[in-house]
Amino acid sequence: MREEDLTAKLLKGDRRAAAKLITTIENNPRDAKKVMREVYRHTGRAQIVGITGPPGSGKSTLIDRLTSEFRKRGKTVGVIAVDVSSPFSGGAFLGDRIRMKNLSTDSGVFIRSMATRGCMGGLARATCDAIKILDAFGKDVILVETVGTGQDEVDIINAAHTSIVVTVPGLGDEIQAIKAGTMEIADIFVVNKADREGADMAVSELRAMLDLADKRGWKPPVVMTAAIEGTGIAGLVDRINEHYKYLKDNDLLKPWLKRRAEMEIVNIAKDIVARDVAEMKKSDAYKKLLEEIVEKKIDPHSAADKIMKMVKKGAGRKG
Amino acid sequence: MREEDLTAKLLKGDRRAAAKLITTIENNPRDAKKVMREVYRHTGRAQIVGITGPPGSGKSTLIDRLTSEFRKRGKTVGVIAVDVSSPFSGGAFLGDRIRMKNLSTDSGVFIRSMATRGCMGGLARATCDAIKILDAFGKDVILVETVGTGQDEVDIINAAHTSIVVTVPGLGDEIQAIKAGTMEIADIFVVNKADREGADMAVSELRAMLDLADKRGWKPPVVMTAAIEGTGIAGLVDRINEHYKYLKDNDLLKPWLKRRAEMEIVNIAKDIVARDVAEMKKSDAYKKLLEEIVEKKIDPHSAADKIMKMVKKGAGRKG
Repeated sequence: MREEDLTAKLLKGDRRAAAKLITTIENNPRDAKKVMREVYRHTGRAQIVGITGPPGSGKSTLIDRLTSEFRKRGKTVGVIAVDVSSPFSGGAFLGDRIRMKNLSTDSGVFIRSMATRGCMGGLARATCDAIKILDAFGKDVILVETVGTGQDEVDIINAAHTSIVVTVPGLGDEIQAIKAGTMEIADIFVVNKADREGADMAVSELRAMLDLADKRGWKPPVVMTAAIEGTGIAGLVDRINEHYKYLKDNDLLKPWLKRRAEMEIVNIAKDIVARDVAEMKKSDAYKKLLEEIVEKKIDPHSAADKIMKMVKKGAGRKG
Repeated sequence: MREEDLTAKLLKGDRRAAAKLITTIENNPRDAKKVMREVYRHTGRAQIVGITGPPGSGKSTLIDRLTSEFRKRGKTVGVIAVDVSSPFSGGAFLGDRIRMKNLSTDSGVFIRSMATRGCMGGLARATCDAIKILDAFGKDVILVETVGTGQDEVDIINAAHTSIVVTVPGLGDEIQAIKAGTMEIADIFVVNKADREGADMAVSELRAMLDLADKRGWKPPVVMTAAIEGTGIAGLVDRINEHYKYLKDNDLLKPWLKRRAEMEIVNIAKDIVARDVAEMKKSDAYKKLLEEIVEKKIDPHSAADKIMKMVKKGAGRKG
């Protein structure tokens, strides 16, 4: 089916069209261009929430509970679980785990996991596109889950209106470092598993760090939750909505959209180049350069330069 | 000082030249090209070992002990700690922690942490270049530490002869998923903190997974360590050396070098493009496109296409 037809179906709320379009934008940046050319003008209505935190912090359960709470408040919800483990395994652990829940029978909820497909993948690019598809699809709230703090994850989190960093009491030293590292992106901190020992301490530490950081404007709240018991979830949704309102009231949505566009342009450009290079792989010139690198006759930088020149020459041929 | 002079000093074992060259390749992919053009032909002697694992698995301590063990065996060691937390904070937690150890007074050891500097960073590209600088510098063994399994980390780990995945007993569900996700890259598994309860179980689980995976050729061993106590470190170094010997004995070094070159070419190309786009930012055409994206008159993909065309037109101007 052509992209235009799928988009028309998407806008009418066809779930299969949504799923198919996301698969399309995942598999090929060039097809993604066709899809997004149709879809983009229908975006801009959804409230986008990014959730990140170390493995074991209970993000999946938290997202499950947040989804239920938003549903209670009459909102439809899209969930995108970004699966960093998949470059290797092709699996989709986070998505699968979420899918097991009852939510999947609710037509007001659409759940999707994203996974990189090797280095041509462009996970951040694909996830930003998927967010827009769910936005055009009509979901009121889109929750995006990532693990860790690699560049892809940072870009993904920056594509959300509101970024939530989840932590749990009693994690080790390196976790502390990562927590410190995420200070600048968090609009809201969540201390999950708040029934564990050390929860109050974790909250105080975070608040102390926030005082030191002395952020102007929005001051990130620290929210305690126990996602498994469902404690603190309603309060967290209140904070999320407050932050969104703050952006709107202070004319910050347009600057946010601009920052997102800048990040997307770079990622799309990288994706195009990665694909261009991949398409060169069968050429004799490419194979010869590889041999020369192995034999130390040329360095990878100079080889990449030559390949880029070949790509640029061939640029006229492609859509 | 010119790159050629710095390289000459590097080859004579000048530490400051090494540090300065790494800073250069970190800050600018175009300067990196100049440096690597000089440095690359002097590489190929070092044994490169990549170490990854979730936060809290004790990688830093493990690397500290591995360094001591290699030193005992008469090898000089370079350590590169790749700090994923830094896109936000600019800090260098892992590196700092390592630096605190006594190793830093040993002239046979060179320690460096790498950090992304925003989305232009190209962490994988920079780390691959830094590995080569330490190789040309004359370090016998280069240990590269990363956290997590984002695409940058995968690329970095694939730039090593031997990839070690570290885990610890008793971590949560998501860790299991990540562990499963790293099956395909691990040449050696380490169960660290082996004095903890559940260590034997973790080892059996890993061995069962490995049996299912049915890898041909090299069968990844599972090694127990207690890095803080120093237990199991000598055995681990033996396994690392066995794997390196396996690559050499089976003529696998050349295919490895080719795979690395292919990955590097893509990352260098992406880096060049990211920088090209960044250089467009002040142009009126770029600013106009951003406005149009915000107003939904054009989608980010079509805008990126236009910017790429502008970049390609201007391609003749630059080195």
